[in-house]
Amino acid sequence: MTRFAFTIQATDGRARTGAIAMERGTIRTPAFMPVGTAATVKAMKPADVVAAGADIILGNTYHLMLRPGAERVERLGGLHAFMGWDRPILTDSGGYQVMSLSELTKRSEDGVAFKSHLDGTRHMLSPERSIDIQRRLGSNIVMAFDELVPTTTPREVQAAAMERSMRWAKRSRDAFDSGEEHAAHNAIFGIQQGALDEGLRKSSADALIDIGFDGYAVGGLAVGEGQEAMFACLDYAPQQLPADRPRYLMGVGKPTDIVGAVERGIDMFDCVLPTRSGRTGQAFTRGGPLNLRNARFSEDRGPLDPECPCPVCATWSRAYLHHLVRSGEILGAMLMTEHNIRFYEHLMADLRAAITDGTLASFANTFRVRYAGETTGERA
Amino acid sequence: MTRFAFTIQATDGRARTGAIAMERGTIRTPAFMPVGTAATVKAMKPADVVAAGADIILGNTYHLMLRPGAERVERLGGLHAFMGWDRPILTDSGGYQVMSLSELTKRSEDGVAFKSHLDGTRHMLSPERSIDIQRRLGSNIVMAFDELVPTTTPREVQAAAMERSMRWAKRSRDAFDSGEEHAAHNAIFGIQQGALDEGLRKSSADALIDIGFDGYAVGGLAVGEGQEAMFACLDYAPQQLPADRPRYLMGVGKPTDIVGAVERGIDMFDCVLPTRSGRTGQAFTRGGPLNLRNARFSEDRGPLDPECPCPVCATWSRAYLHHLVRSGEILGAMLMTEHNIRFYEHLMADLRAAITDGTLASFANTFRVRYAGETTGERA
Repeated sequence: MTRFAFTIQATDGRARTGAIAMERGTIRTPAFMPVGTAATVKAMKPADVVAAGADIILGNTYHLMLRPGAERVERLGGLHAFMGWDRPILTDSGGYQVMSLSELTKRSEDGVAFKSHLDGTRHMLSPERSIDIQRRLGSNIVMAFDELVPTTTPREVQAAAMERSMRWAKRSRDAFDSGEEHAAHNAIFGIQQGALDEGLRKSSADALIDIGFDGYAVGGLAVGEGQEAMFACLDYAPQQLPADRPRYLMGVGKPTDIVGAVERGIDMFDCVLPTRSGRTGQAFTRGGPLNLRNARFSEDRGPLDPECPCPVCATWSRAYLHHLVRSGEILGAMLMTEHNIRFYEHLMADLRAAITDGTLASFANTFRVRYAGETTGERA
Repeated sequence: MTRFAFTIQATDGRARTGAIAMERGTIRTPAFMPVGTAATVKAMKPADVVAAGADIILGNTYHLMLRPGAERVERLGGLHAFMGWDRPILTDSGGYQVMSLSELTKRSEDGVAFKSHLDGTRHMLSPERSIDIQRRLGSNIVMAFDELVPTTTPREVQAAAMERSMRWAKRSRDAFDSGEEHAAHNAIFGIQQGALDEGLRKSSADALIDIGFDGYAVGGLAVGEGQEAMFACLDYAPQQLPADRPRYLMGVGKPTDIVGAVERGIDMFDCVLPTRSGRTGQAFTRGGPLNLRNARFSEDRGPLDPECPCPVCATWSRAYLHHLVRSGEILGAMLMTEHNIRFYEHLMADLRAAITDGTLASFANTFRVRYAGETTGERA
């Protein structure tokens, strides 16, 4: 069985397409990972996530450690058995959600202490505890525990945070390796920090390469800096990371974010946008996003996206989806989410095909022209 | 094509099993109809409703006339095309929901005027308007418009309400027949009223038989009178209706209600209980109902119902469902609803098999003994 093997099958400019072979299955890259925050890709059955074309999903360490708890998931046979998903799972480290969702009570070299956003109970996360949780969950791609600071913070603060994250990356790697049985079958990624500063990004990349990881994430982006600033960073940041390892852009993003990031050499993505938008009546289509709550769809007999081959577009009209969304029906969230995940996975398949064919530039330009207007990307 | 043909294939005591052949498909009886209130069986895709074993679903005239509106559904091709369900649909007349959900502003021999519970807008329903709406929806089994009064009302009031309902039944029949194209392909059922009074029930049955319907419903039960009183009424009411026509007990019910009613000669049922319970974490199992919110399920690795062959029980544990329900996850409502509808449809299949085998009494007694404790039945 292959623990982790990344093969690049074709390149087009800086973009690459290939596959990551792992014991639980192969991940075609560039890959989009639907977010399964609390042990469920919200409003979808696992079989429909597979049918949509997803090779891997993401689980959130922060959410799962609070409910149902990592030890409980472990006793119940791990996250795969618990949620009925047998393909690879990547788990984040919890660092992002601790900052964005919980009340932080202490932040030190050791780690962070915080109060749960659910019930106020006290918890802590450190590199060692984060990796321990991810191991108990049965994660196939474990993320190093890092520290995230806003991109607007002064450079000295960014530098200090990045340097601490690099010390935490080493502790994460050591903690991962100490779980020998788990480490023998699974992989760990390091996370590059350094905000929007090319020099800090380079130092961070070098520190991670020195430690050595199976893959490398570009962290700290998609936090409000805007697409232009993000792309400016992606013009150099992925190139600072090893070419023969997968590069993962965390928490991204909108469809045009993904297209632009693939052009800049990114291989993996996750974002709550398609699932969260589905629950609020926002659809992604090849002509741009649509808000199905809008009254103009009330008698629209056409499919959500006339070019979409998904079961939702084959069966139901915009008028029906409008009715479901307006009525607050669960089926509305189910069908909109399924279409949106299909849209994202189709986009990834189109990007892989365009790279293979050497036509990425024309695909991307056409996509950007046709795809007018976008909603905002967000993370879980 | 067969407009409506009811065949009894076997009897066991007063119970019957058979089939209703219609243009859109055959309904095996005794039949349970999942409730698709607002053009959706809540939290289920139509294909999963079919896979669960449902031959027919129920749509609510009251809900659909308010949102999205009967004329709109008609312009969009009818309820079947709108919601993606191609098998038979029975629609109620709206009479029950007008009384239970809306603010009644006028009640006369002509019909009822009321304010929508959604937005306060003014509407009216009469036998003619109810049948018109059901025709526009494309209903395959249309219900006569009737008047429902509490079973605790004095006999004179019950008698007057029943007599008005019989005049409305005639107007409903005439209105149905006047829609010639629709009437040529679909069926209409009359509704027996008379509360818990055997004499009134007999008068009502005779009036309906005099008009003549494709099938007959026992109305005005499952409104708080309790199972014992309901069964006492069902000891005579179904026998007052024609033996060669389907008998439909509206809004019923709990599993033991259904078993007892089948023993008393009922052929069709509808109830929101399996779907509504699914959304609140209540599961039906062969050992009785379970509240999945209960902490005792938090590490229960067993399936919801060890004897259930449904996909939910084959895939997920009580612990996982507990987690989903406690976390308010949409997937919890989806899986619990699917299991509950499967449970109801399995029960109907078991009842049909027991009648065919002549073993209904022993099946029913075993079911009652094993099925300990029940939640309360309710209507949409």
